[in-house]
Amino acid sequence: MKNLTLSVFIATSLDGYIARLDGKLDWLDKVAPVDETEDYGYQSYIRTIDCIVMGRKTFDKVSSFSKWPYEGKRVIVFSQTLKEAPADFMDKVEVYNGKPEMLVVDLQYQGVRKVYLDGGLTIQSFLAKGLVDEMIITQVPVLIGRGIPLFGMLQKDVRLTLGQSKSFSSGFVQSHYKIKLKD
Amino acid sequence: MKNLTLSVFIATSLDGYIARLDGKLDWLDKVAPVDETEDYGYQSYIRTIDCIVMGRKTFDKVSSFSKWPYEGKRVIVFSQTLKEAPADFMDKVEVYNGKPEMLVVDLQYQGVRKVYLDGGLTIQSFLAKGLVDEMIITQVPVLIGRGIPLFGMLQKDVRLTLGQSKSFSSGFVQSHYKIKLKD
Repeated sequence: MKNLTLSVFIATSLDGYIARLDGKLDWLDKVAPVDETEDYGYQSYIRTIDCIVMGRKTFDKVSSFSKWPYEGKRVIVFSQTLKEAPADFMDKVEVYNGKPEMLVVDLQYQGVRKVYLDGGLTIQSFLAKGLVDEMIITQVPVLIGRGIPLFGMLQKDVRLTLGQSKSFSSGFVQSHYKIKLKD
Repeated sequence: MKNLTLSVFIATSLDGYIARLDGKLDWLDKVAPVDETEDYGYQSYIRTIDCIVMGRKTFDKVSSFSKWPYEGKRVIVFSQTLKEAPADFMDKVEVYNGKPEMLVVDLQYQGVRKVYLDGGLTIQSFLAKGLVDEMIITQVPVLIGRGIPLFGMLQKDVRLTLGQSKSFSSGFVQSHYKIKLKD
């Protein structure tokens, strides 16, 4: 029995991109300027998480922010290239160079209950191995034409089950999916 | 003033494909076997349409069905390669070899009010020219990994406005968008 939930909480353009090719999110800010009264469920989601696993590019992005947004949360940078955390981030992140399935085994052994997976390639590599349990996808009403896609190639179809789906006055549509491991 | 509405009504996998690379829709049938009681609004939509414009691959697919599904509707096959309708379909379809913007001008002149655009490349070429007015997109809860994408490259971002969005017991999420021609 697996007590660990691997979860994705992400916004995409309607054409399925999580960022422009250079990582920029200007299209997202343009459609929905930061709104203090509406966080699309992010705060209540993040409170349920005990560990964040993000790709190296996402880490590069997040570590460039003026303030580290994950203070007090365990963060693992999942990377095949980065060997250790940059000096400034030694106390903020761990680096993991292994395979997705081994990371899951390690986290389970450590008693982690719920992981927030972030970053296009990271999400794709966990999805391809059948390791993602749920996805909360918020679709932004804009087409950007090219960028970093949320989804990639798969060895076989992945079926999902829809939970709640709701729309916001900004035109965002947020849908909660659970992944069916067997058809 | 433009009295003509160009409209898209289409189902995609959650990863944005309208068909597998070979045109197959088996993934769609598997998730939602044909249901006599639920047509996802298709019949009431199609009643509002006076002309269907489809790409050549979509025509190849539809014309292989045992029964022509568009009896009584004007159908235009939008193609750069097909020069005239196959003999069996002379009385069923017209073929148009020109540019999207010229077709729109022609249809307006002919008093057409609402066009249903179908086929990946056809939708993409009309979208890229800013000619699509609304899209009704039904997302199917399955990832197929590769296929014919609904969306393609664009010269610039396309903003949309969300109308109704609703979910079905099959897990489909259907969202109505209008396209903002100016930001």
